[in-house]
Amino acid sequence: MFNAATREFCQQLKIKNPIIQAPMAGAIITPSLVYEVAQAGGLGSVPLGYLSLDDAQDMLQKTAQLTSNFAANIFIPASPVTPAPAHIHKMLLQLNQYRQKLNLEPLTTLPSCQEAPLAELIELIIASSVPILSFVFGILDEKHIHRLKQYNIYLIGTATTVAEGRILEKIGCDAIIAQGYEAGGHRGSFLNHANSGFIGTMALVPMLVAALKIPVIAAGGIMNGRGIAAAFMLGASAVQMGTAFLTCTESQASALHKQLILHKSAEDTYLTKVFTGKYVRCLKNQLVEDIESKFVSDEILPYPLQHYLTQELRSQAKKKDDFHYAGFWSGQATSLARALSVQALIKALEEETKVSVSRLKAGVKTV
Amino acid sequence: MFNAATREFCQQLKIKNPIIQAPMAGAIITPSLVYEVAQAGGLGSVPLGYLSLDDAQDMLQKTAQLTSNFAANIFIPASPVTPAPAHIHKMLLQLNQYRQKLNLEPLTTLPSCQEAPLAELIELIIASSVPILSFVFGILDEKHIHRLKQYNIYLIGTATTVAEGRILEKIGCDAIIAQGYEAGGHRGSFLNHANSGFIGTMALVPMLVAALKIPVIAAGGIMNGRGIAAAFMLGASAVQMGTAFLTCTESQASALHKQLILHKSAEDTYLTKVFTGKYVRCLKNQLVEDIESKFVSDEILPYPLQHYLTQELRSQAKKKDDFHYAGFWSGQATSLARALSVQALIKALEEETKVSVSRLKAGVKTV
Repeated sequence: MFNAATREFCQQLKIKNPIIQAPMAGAIITPSLVYEVAQAGGLGSVPLGYLSLDDAQDMLQKTAQLTSNFAANIFIPASPVTPAPAHIHKMLLQLNQYRQKLNLEPLTTLPSCQEAPLAELIELIIASSVPILSFVFGILDEKHIHRLKQYNIYLIGTATTVAEGRILEKIGCDAIIAQGYEAGGHRGSFLNHANSGFIGTMALVPMLVAALKIPVIAAGGIMNGRGIAAAFMLGASAVQMGTAFLTCTESQASALHKQLILHKSAEDTYLTKVFTGKYVRCLKNQLVEDIESKFVSDEILPYPLQHYLTQELRSQAKKKDDFHYAGFWSGQATSLARALSVQALIKALEEETKVSVSRLKAGVKTV
Repeated sequence: MFNAATREFCQQLKIKNPIIQAPMAGAIITPSLVYEVAQAGGLGSVPLGYLSLDDAQDMLQKTAQLTSNFAANIFIPASPVTPAPAHIHKMLLQLNQYRQKLNLEPLTTLPSCQEAPLAELIELIIASSVPILSFVFGILDEKHIHRLKQYNIYLIGTATTVAEGRILEKIGCDAIIAQGYEAGGHRGSFLNHANSGFIGTMALVPMLVAALKIPVIAAGGIMNGRGIAAAFMLGASAVQMGTAFLTCTESQASALHKQLILHKSAEDTYLTKVFTGKYVRCLKNQLVEDIESKFVSDEILPYPLQHYLTQELRSQAKKKDDFHYAGFWSGQATSLARALSVQALIKALEEETKVSVSRLKAGVKTV
């Protein structure tokens, strides 16, 4: 597939197409979507972020019944932070105004975290014979890396800067995802560089390719064969695509979410900490504008507290198709989104990539 | 050159390499640098922004003595805005603190604008037989377009969103520059979409290519042959590169400016309105942090007032090699910057692009 590096990467990951479906946490990706990606020769990712151990086990089991070749994706937990009581109070008051509008009981205290502890999650991944593990928001420690490597699990970290990429290579990742500024959903950043760390895919990928020896997977703004061919030119061995799969028939994103992406423009997408305490690229709505106008950045509670605080509100708003209080993640290249089945999308991507390449081949003699 | 669209673009612009040296206003680009670009088969741009009519005439004359093939670049003037006296007062007080540190007299009032009026600038461009005109910050009105077209001047607008691209095509531009978020210096935006309009090159270029019929020139984060080959895959007909030329031997950027770009990382670059009132990607320094911590966005004076207010301060700081009060523009892909002559850079870009293409050709049969 394309150049030697990509061919080797595809062989290692036992895939035909160097296309990874991004792990989109929050009930968008199902085992059968991951299976469809595998059937089309790509690599599906099962998002385990936010899940309890039982739910994670269920997801992995159901996926393994359909295909043996997939990646699991986990969130590296943040160090616990205790926010100032005044900040908690101010945020609760604000969110309760929205909750009232959506007929939800007011919150009086921080909801508790239901996520699976990392060590148990890693044992589950090993026990479930997951072949590939990708992770975001941080690094795995030596002990976990050692355990996973004992079982030959292929490890993919997520970098948003060259500094993060260097750390991920050093701890023993087999490949990294270079997540550019254009990407929808959470930024996978783990070094603290605030918004100075927002690096576009076009700059980030070739910088990481130049700095690292391990394969680089390009992510952010890639929606069609043009983007895939461009990523390979930048030196990437594969691409990861989220938004392109979100609007697919098999995706469990709501009909409203899909329609919004298909009809909104890149300027409607926005990076904010308002929903979860970490930067997320989403469609800007009233909730985002309202909270950002009333809270300075430090007053927004740290991840995952802000996530748990807004979770029920967002879920209720999604149920009611209320755009203005829901969190609809989206990458920047909205106008290239399509409503296709997963298999039709991957087939189109393959064809388009061939077209881009043949255009180049036709002209290459004149360089 | 590459595909049919690029070959046609090169023929129209009478260039061999579809590489445009970005117009970097502020005494970085000289006529002889533009000549070197032309000698290497690319297209140099003469920046007329900030210049008086006399200085613009001088730049154009000196360039025309060296080469007949170059672009001139102009700023479309902003509608005059009168800031609140309280905002002017607050900014003057703040800037005077820095001025004192650099032994400059305090400012008591807004400096006056010395820029050439647009209509006169356009007549100068016509009189100087400039073959290609690019512009930023807005659109040319019908009257000016008509005048320029009478003389067959090739018109290139600058778009940072699809909406801007559509307007530029409609008013009669022959091509547009798609300026991605990664780009150094001023964002060329003219529709008011605040920071929601920050679209990465990887998303912006294919969206504009899909939306428009005229050629798209990719800009932002492109520093080497990988970036150039990627831009062509995205559907661009050419690339525009700024930072890559800024660190060239012939560039008149200060030695400190060049060294900073060569040694800083992408995370050190930052978009701020602090220097000019419009978003500029620069290297973050004390002045940026200090003003941003003390002023809300609305208190920063509109362009060009903020530019004229900070101009002498920045110029003095540059003379003294004082990083913390100077404005050093830079794109994001700093780690790919090189200290080469213009001709060596363009030769390297040509070679690297060929390598990227041949890597792809070698693997293409297995797609």
